[in-house]
Amino acid sequence: MIVTPQTRRFTEPLSLQSGAVLPAYELVYETYGTLNAERSNAVLVCHALNASHHVAGWHADVNGQPLARSEGWWNNMIGPGKPVDTDRYFVVSVNNLGSCFGSTGPTHINPATGQPWGADFPVVTVEDWVHAQARLLDALGIETLAAVMGGSLGGMQTLSWTLQYPNRVRHAVVVASAPNLTAENIAFNEVARRAIVTDPDFHGGHYLREGTLPRRGLRIARMIGHITYLSDDVMNEKFGRSLRRADGEDPAAVAELAYRYSTQDVEFQIESYLRYQGDKFSEYFDANTYLLITRALDYFDPARAFEGNLSAAVARARAGFLLISFTTDWRFSPARSREMVKALLENRREVSYCEIDAPHGHDAFLLDDARYHQAVRAYFERTVGATLAGEVTHG
Amino acid sequence: MIVTPQTRRFTEPLSLQSGAVLPAYELVYETYGTLNAERSNAVLVCHALNASHHVAGWHADVNGQPLARSEGWWNNMIGPGKPVDTDRYFVVSVNNLGSCFGSTGPTHINPATGQPWGADFPVVTVEDWVHAQARLLDALGIETLAAVMGGSLGGMQTLSWTLQYPNRVRHAVVVASAPNLTAENIAFNEVARRAIVTDPDFHGGHYLREGTLPRRGLRIARMIGHITYLSDDVMNEKFGRSLRRADGEDPAAVAELAYRYSTQDVEFQIESYLRYQGDKFSEYFDANTYLLITRALDYFDPARAFEGNLSAAVARARAGFLLISFTTDWRFSPARSREMVKALLENRREVSYCEIDAPHGHDAFLLDDARYHQAVRAYFERTVGATLAGEVTHG
Repeated sequence: MIVTPQTRRFTEPLSLQSGAVLPAYELVYETYGTLNAERSNAVLVCHALNASHHVAGWHADVNGQPLARSEGWWNNMIGPGKPVDTDRYFVVSVNNLGSCFGSTGPTHINPATGQPWGADFPVVTVEDWVHAQARLLDALGIETLAAVMGGSLGGMQTLSWTLQYPNRVRHAVVVASAPNLTAENIAFNEVARRAIVTDPDFHGGHYLREGTLPRRGLRIARMIGHITYLSDDVMNEKFGRSLRRADGEDPAAVAELAYRYSTQDVEFQIESYLRYQGDKFSEYFDANTYLLITRALDYFDPARAFEGNLSAAVARARAGFLLISFTTDWRFSPARSREMVKALLENRREVSYCEIDAPHGHDAFLLDDARYHQAVRAYFERTVGATLAGEVTHG
Repeated sequence: MIVTPQTRRFTEPLSLQSGAVLPAYELVYETYGTLNAERSNAVLVCHALNASHHVAGWHADVNGQPLARSEGWWNNMIGPGKPVDTDRYFVVSVNNLGSCFGSTGPTHINPATGQPWGADFPVVTVEDWVHAQARLLDALGIETLAAVMGGSLGGMQTLSWTLQYPNRVRHAVVVASAPNLTAENIAFNEVARRAIVTDPDFHGGHYLREGTLPRRGLRIARMIGHITYLSDDVMNEKFGRSLRRADGEDPAAVAELAYRYSTQDVEFQIESYLRYQGDKFSEYFDANTYLLITRALDYFDPARAFEGNLSAAVARARAGFLLISFTTDWRFSPARSREMVKALLENRREVSYCEIDAPHGHDAFLLDDARYHQAVRAYFERTVGATLAGEVTHG
């Protein structure tokens, strides 16, 4: 499946939760499948921290062939015949405001100054993103969504959709998510942000003007992130305490590798893996975007306006829900999903909940686990599909 | 209890595990209580990452009065009438080689160059520390220890004592420790080290020559450390999602505090706490010492020489053991202590094991928990005390 991103420009100013106003902006998005005549089969997919609108399929090279390494980040989940079947559903995915993958963000030009926005790009929240996504759907002529879905931060947007636009969402699929971040989650985000902000190449967020990039800080941020995405178990299985083989070293001699006794060289395989991930990330991700997106995570807390009462906060929701969590996910643990399940049940919402016994930690939501995909497939085939045909109503 | 650190110079070269040789060195240490005539009541306490020889009591000001903020780091555990009762035991604690609190380390002058050692200070291991500690005990005329004890990295030294000098240790008290680090532990250490090493003020580890200090890196390292010392539970209880009150803000108005919508200012209390801890640490800790000590943690793995078989590795031990772990410690989890218990029992060692249900995470080993302290007290009164009187023998 070859896909091409599209861009839509909005000239009506967007009022943000912070009080700031974004005068005009562009959203980059992709669609897969075909909107039916009733306009009832649209599914919105929301992306997480470092992902983009490029959810499914492949981008094309100049010859129209699939471009190497251009696979969508949820291509195992979304496409023809896949759990979210694009032969049946019209899937829309939007790059969020403040991102560095096409939609208006800190690397774009601030029309007021003629310079890149940098650190002056306004703080955006999950609610602001959902607001902007709703405008795009308006423009596409989609009033009601058969479903909204997302994992992690994408799950937060999904939950927020059911609260901001209760009558526009029939179903919500919230994977590996939480109703807010814990203090520990905020703490990891804060360390990552401090690593970026204290990098001398950050220049108060105006590094583009200075011709620099705070790569050191981004590397550290990404390394911290990676540790928290994986489970202790999967790290032990994948890397354990194995030492890194030097180039040209006899693979058969692995067991006899000796410690090199160095504080700065790579000694263990896990170190090599983390450094590689950090280096790669620092080449393509924007530091100001990282700050914005981690802050959106920190701020999300729909219960806040209800004195912490999540049940009261979700009373507005009208959608049916599928929630999924993974046993070894310590970043967005099953307990956090169960909080949402409980709050929704207290409001007599229709809720399905799957706790998948998977070893992969938070990353599991991106992986091709048969039970997980079967749960999503069944929900889209039967439950979402039934409302598509008008057989079941919620609310 | 006022104590004064002592210094001992060693001129016999110390051969290190790495193959390097430290030509001469000094160890700073403290003692509490009195060595008995039989020289049978000595207890060695081993320190963890950022601690020192100053375990118990207080240092004195110029008037001989306790100096503010000079309390020993395990003063709730060790002293007259305390669980490790210095009216009965002669407690010795040594600042480890490579530290920045007095014993020879990277901030000292390398006699070969006349410059601070900096990054040229040789890599030291748990085994090297134990070796150096044994030499100090030789110098103090102590052949056999009634007990060795330590928490975390100090527990690793304790375990190593029972393997390197099985006939010199009657009892070993290993608290909140592990027989090696997991990949996740190594990963956190590696991120901390990368933060330090990539700080432009690090200068390849020769920052003292350059008149700089890599404070940014140390701050990040400490923040990461702090997150992993605490449990998610205790962070939520202590900080939760509370916002930081600005100076002068009405304390009664806390509930109505609004988000400030900033990516760089402190918004949540947990952020303020972490920044404070990072700042404080970066003022007194040496960056090269941080690299050395985290590497000593990474390298420790007595089962390595036995193809990963911990039971075979501890077969040499002759001591009796008390192991203690804390339920919410995810850095050195109870499962890791149970591995040691199992390996020791397979060798028919005498082992007591307490798993303390405490909310404080890894930090619990430093805190004044009644059940924890009672377990240590009972072990020293009855079990260690009995061998002191010659009533029980091990091995």
